[in-house]
Amino acid sequence: MKERKIFDYVRNVDSVLIMNGGENQVDKTFFYLTGAKSGIFEGSLLHVKPEKVTIITSALEEEAAKETGFEVLIYNTTAEKNEIIKNAFKNDVNVGLNYSALTLDLYKQLMKIIPDKEFIDVSQSIAESRKIKDESELKDLREAAKIASDSFEDFTKTLKEGMTESELAANIVYAMMKNGASGESFSTIVAFGKNSAIPHYMPGNAKLKKNDFVLTDYGALYHRYCSDTTRTVVFGRADEKQKDIYETVKRAQQESKNALKAGVNGKDIDMIARKIIDEKYPGRFIHGLGHGVGMDVHDHPALSPSSDFILKANMVITDEPGIYIPGFGGVRIEDDLIIKDGGHEEITTAPRELLEL
Amino acid sequence: MKERKIFDYVRNVDSVLIMNGGENQVDKTFFYLTGAKSGIFEGSLLHVKPEKVTIITSALEEEAAKETGFEVLIYNTTAEKNEIIKNAFKNDVNVGLNYSALTLDLYKQLMKIIPDKEFIDVSQSIAESRKIKDESELKDLREAAKIASDSFEDFTKTLKEGMTESELAANIVYAMMKNGASGESFSTIVAFGKNSAIPHYMPGNAKLKKNDFVLTDYGALYHRYCSDTTRTVVFGRADEKQKDIYETVKRAQQESKNALKAGVNGKDIDMIARKIIDEKYPGRFIHGLGHGVGMDVHDHPALSPSSDFILKANMVITDEPGIYIPGFGGVRIEDDLIIKDGGHEEITTAPRELLEL
Repeated sequence: MKERKIFDYVRNVDSVLIMNGGENQVDKTFFYLTGAKSGIFEGSLLHVKPEKVTIITSALEEEAAKETGFEVLIYNTTAEKNEIIKNAFKNDVNVGLNYSALTLDLYKQLMKIIPDKEFIDVSQSIAESRKIKDESELKDLREAAKIASDSFEDFTKTLKEGMTESELAANIVYAMMKNGASGESFSTIVAFGKNSAIPHYMPGNAKLKKNDFVLTDYGALYHRYCSDTTRTVVFGRADEKQKDIYETVKRAQQESKNALKAGVNGKDIDMIARKIIDEKYPGRFIHGLGHGVGMDVHDHPALSPSSDFILKANMVITDEPGIYIPGFGGVRIEDDLIIKDGGHEEITTAPRELLEL
Repeated sequence: MKERKIFDYVRNVDSVLIMNGGENQVDKTFFYLTGAKSGIFEGSLLHVKPEKVTIITSALEEEAAKETGFEVLIYNTTAEKNEIIKNAFKNDVNVGLNYSALTLDLYKQLMKIIPDKEFIDVSQSIAESRKIKDESELKDLREAAKIASDSFEDFTKTLKEGMTESELAANIVYAMMKNGASGESFSTIVAFGKNSAIPHYMPGNAKLKKNDFVLTDYGALYHRYCSDTTRTVVFGRADEKQKDIYETVKRAQQESKNALKAGVNGKDIDMIARKIIDEKYPGRFIHGLGHGVGMDVHDHPALSPSSDFILKANMVITDEPGIYIPGFGGVRIEDDLIIKDGGHEEITTAPRELLEL
């Protein structure tokens, strides 16, 4: 059972209401605040007051809800659910909602159930709270990162000529789950040869050929927390162009990492990496340098030309420069780091030198 | 490239705007309407008119967007993105939005970018369109179901005394990916022994013991379409109570399936199964009998006491009765079926008799 200090951030409301819809409308803040290890909690609600947290859910999730140690109210029908909501919020005048996760549809439903409330957008405060990870979260994030790093050695052993991208993706997910992940934290990217020029490529039936780039972007899910790491290797021998692209990305990552610490601005860090790449490969670094990692893989913006974002201690972010040459291939190197006062802690640790396997 | 006949359902708007946010606010309708095979498309938009579909996205997704064959407009900054949106919608007065996927936060942003539009909730029409699967969707759903069914034989071979639930979950996902899945369609459930009494249990370190129930609820993702199937076996020999629970669930499933065809009401089908279970195990069937399956695992409501829902041809649904006895264990059997005029087509095919392995 985790007690989150959400009311250090959320002010001026009597309570916060987290409302889940279907599988795509489940607000991860529900799990952030309850620490529920099991359960999916579709259609469930959370009533959060400074002194008390109440889970409102169906019989389907009763056992998972009770494991959290918080108060649990069970409904069997929609009518029962609505009555429970009315009753739970009867003394609250101002109710905070997470506008960044609540759909218009759920909001309309809510206005019918408790029409007399003043709803206040507390999404920014929730986001601020979630950006700074506590010790228990850092522990889970370190473990998610360790699983991904340990798995690198396992799955690179399975590389062989003629295997498909999909086969390698299967081996990556298998390695992570054998090493303790509850699953992949996002759909694993494996791109061979010129396919590596597409940053969000989806693995297919392309076969591994000698001297191909092998780009793997993958992450483990552990206690609902994510890791997100990318390694690019060459299957065989790298030619001069491959080496130059790789070393440029590696240098962009190393120099940007050198500057990572609490207090710096994300766009300045992005610029360090971007300048190195643009000098040699202008216009080939087509995404931001990095993002927050937490219960979401893309937890919050962090390092990009448009991020006017000051890094704080105990934020966890990626640093992932890339160079993409359509028709030739691409390289990305990505690590997860905990921001500290005066520096950072790198939590993904697979080798970063150019590997020829 | 798929052309969806969304305007057979959506009326009285000049266009439909699908707006994606971050990873948890990506509307699957984006993929339904574009058929994009690659890409994640966070922050991207879709402008859908009866005569034309336009993808508005960043350079990161440019190649994936172009593969669809639709018009693609690329932005590099938020300012550019907003200009493209203003321009794309300049001749539209009434703009349809998917209220069931759009967050309040994105809606507020949108109202600032194009404040002069009349926004109309077309979520019901989109949902109606997505409920009835076309031939291309049925092909992908059949393949997702086949992958899950074929994998059953592979992963049951790996059962051995002392293995953990997490290990078996790894073997299940590995089997599905080796058989062609791009991933799991939801977080795989493996529950040994008494853990099988928790419907949404998350696999942990429990070790497999002789004569345990082994409940596996899993599905494959194929071309972004899902399957969702459950099998419960006994590792060793089933005792009389296990057999009785199993046969009751099996009979509830078989008799409810016998009645499945276009034109029937979902709550009547649910009642067939519920009556059989409640006669022997009152109150132990603690969820609805089934749900729609598509790009979402829980695509739409279908079979439950509260679903006043008429089944139509080419809907794809699950039939999944269960009995859950806290402290003892549970059984669920789940199959995916395509509703037809006069009957149905069962697309998951792993054995349904009680297996003692």
